[in-house]
Amino acid sequence: MVTIKDIARELGVAASTVSKGLNGGSDISDSLRTAILEKAVEMGYESKHAKKAETRKLALFIENMDYEKPDQFGYQIVLGFRQAAFKSSWETDLIPITVDFQATHPLQLYMVGGHYSAACMLGMALEDPWMSQMDTLRYPTVLLDNFVPANPNVGSVGTDSMEAMEMAVSHLMGLGHEKIAFLDGSAHSYISDQRMLGYLRSMKKHHLPINPNLAVYAYYVEDAAKHHVPGMLDLGATAIICGNDLLAAGAVKCCESLGYRVPDDVSIIGYDDIPLAAKMDPPLTTIHQDLSGLGRACFYTLHAMLDEVSLNRSMLRPRLVIRKSTGLAVPRLVHSRVENHDSVLYVNPSLYTQVAG
Amino acid sequence: MVTIKDIARELGVAASTVSKGLNGGSDISDSLRTAILEKAVEMGYESKHAKKAETRKLALFIENMDYEKPDQFGYQIVLGFRQAAFKSSWETDLIPITVDFQATHPLQLYMVGGHYSAACMLGMALEDPWMSQMDTLRYPTVLLDNFVPANPNVGSVGTDSMEAMEMAVSHLMGLGHEKIAFLDGSAHSYISDQRMLGYLRSMKKHHLPINPNLAVYAYYVEDAAKHHVPGMLDLGATAIICGNDLLAAGAVKCCESLGYRVPDDVSIIGYDDIPLAAKMDPPLTTIHQDLSGLGRACFYTLHAMLDEVSLNRSMLRPRLVIRKSTGLAVPRLVHSRVENHDSVLYVNPSLYTQVAG
Repeated sequence: MVTIKDIARELGVAASTVSKGLNGGSDISDSLRTAILEKAVEMGYESKHAKKAETRKLALFIENMDYEKPDQFGYQIVLGFRQAAFKSSWETDLIPITVDFQATHPLQLYMVGGHYSAACMLGMALEDPWMSQMDTLRYPTVLLDNFVPANPNVGSVGTDSMEAMEMAVSHLMGLGHEKIAFLDGSAHSYISDQRMLGYLRSMKKHHLPINPNLAVYAYYVEDAAKHHVPGMLDLGATAIICGNDLLAAGAVKCCESLGYRVPDDVSIIGYDDIPLAAKMDPPLTTIHQDLSGLGRACFYTLHAMLDEVSLNRSMLRPRLVIRKSTGLAVPRLVHSRVENHDSVLYVNPSLYTQVAG
Repeated sequence: MVTIKDIARELGVAASTVSKGLNGGSDISDSLRTAILEKAVEMGYESKHAKKAETRKLALFIENMDYEKPDQFGYQIVLGFRQAAFKSSWETDLIPITVDFQATHPLQLYMVGGHYSAACMLGMALEDPWMSQMDTLRYPTVLLDNFVPANPNVGSVGTDSMEAMEMAVSHLMGLGHEKIAFLDGSAHSYISDQRMLGYLRSMKKHHLPINPNLAVYAYYVEDAAKHHVPGMLDLGATAIICGNDLLAAGAVKCCESLGYRVPDDVSIIGYDDIPLAAKMDPPLTTIHQDLSGLGRACFYTLHAMLDEVSLNRSMLRPRLVIRKSTGLAVPRLVHSRVENHDSVLYVNPSLYTQVAG
């Protein structure tokens, strides 16, 4: 059990200072108070100060996402959410969920039973049982990287996919690339569709050629790249944007195994900027997502929704981190033989309708 | 000068209760505290409780927008912002600005001089002097209905134009309309462009015909309708969506003066849902903007940005209010004679590039 003394030792301040920070004392600075509250959450301090007559408790549901160790994708998201919530005197219950759990626990009832005021959901899949209950949910709820069109109680938070893909395409254009491929993550995922739409809009905006065989869905794992990258290279792609950094790692390996050097022959861009990205050979140019910021944005969006602001979307700015996997375009001959990949999932036709006419 | 007693009388509670609400006392309910804080701001109570060693002051700049009376467009926006800020112990200075003022006061210096932590800007025009200073501004800043692409310190808040236009087009489609015109507000305005883009995307998505002569920019005043509506009717439009309710009022008058009945011959949709909309003859179907919610969203977005969340856009859900100015489509003959309106501002070609190919 973490005590006030533990926090004081960690921060190198007096226990009485920590106590003031936790209990709203007036004679410490805002920045020190913030540091104390953030450290308290990080260390797992259990406060009593938020227990009031009325419920001040948020449900943070998590699925399909590792979050227990600092280098895992969900860790900073969860921590950022809890820290922002704690600073506004909200308690957070972190609740890992499965499909089975959802199938046997109606969401609305679970919220009532747990005395929660609002919910945040991380890592949900479109086909999850609870997603079909979102249309009628009466609690303010925020979905990370998912979107529900019909219910004013449900908002969406994520990194702005349109701006992210525009950054990647613009960067490659500036290096002279025109045949730019997009190797996206899973089909039937809201965020994959958003990134595909961003890619198509950006290519269209810059009058670059859109080839359906260069815009394909795969899976968010390294191994998926090898099924698609050879065909893209055969079609003359000089650059490949990938739906996440793992796919990009697979794409680099695949290019090199086929005798293409990165970035001399082919440029590769990732998405997320996981710790691996900077350590790859060559270090990966990628779109950085602010994971702690996403968690904090989920809380602040919920905070607004608890004050009856019907937020539809809150989008964070992406940042393009330019490393060594992108370089000047070198024109290449197009191979005449293109294998027919039965397993390739081509771009969703409805996205073309929205963009490419 | 408003006192605690005045607030107590207004709410019908004891002065000691108001005092507790204002000063963070623990034995009153959250909902009563909220009501007290909101009433205090509404009545212009000047608190001393937020004065701390560190600056806790926000600048709320306003231009091109009436806000002093309850029925004016900016009133609820300003009040919503102040109420949400006050509840989180932030002071707000409301600062009306002009173009001359901006030209003689560099924004960054003004922020430093006033000891402001962050800014919100209402009603700015794209060509304003301060807009060109936004790219390098170092303070967290939120723009209502404007967008700055380059600076992570500047975020945008507004009603979701894409969803709003989709609601309007879908509603008309459901009534059998196909030749749907859009009479937008001023060209060279970010929000007009967003609404035009929303209209074009929605028409494209539903495979409805896009005619550049039925998608034009005007001005956000009633009188502007008469320059465009006759041409739209000549081209066979059976429905006209308008960029705001004033334009819609002008469109209704223009239709009737030409012998077209609303909604029997032509359907009209407005935007904003100002008090006039419900009182028109016929009562206007329109897209409702939650003005107080926009003000509150501006604060909550700033609140997140003050915690270093780089929010790009926060979009509120629109709501379509269906009244009597829309009805079933009746096919009409197209007049062969179309006047050539020299003054018509047709749709920005770059928007077509983004959508219509």
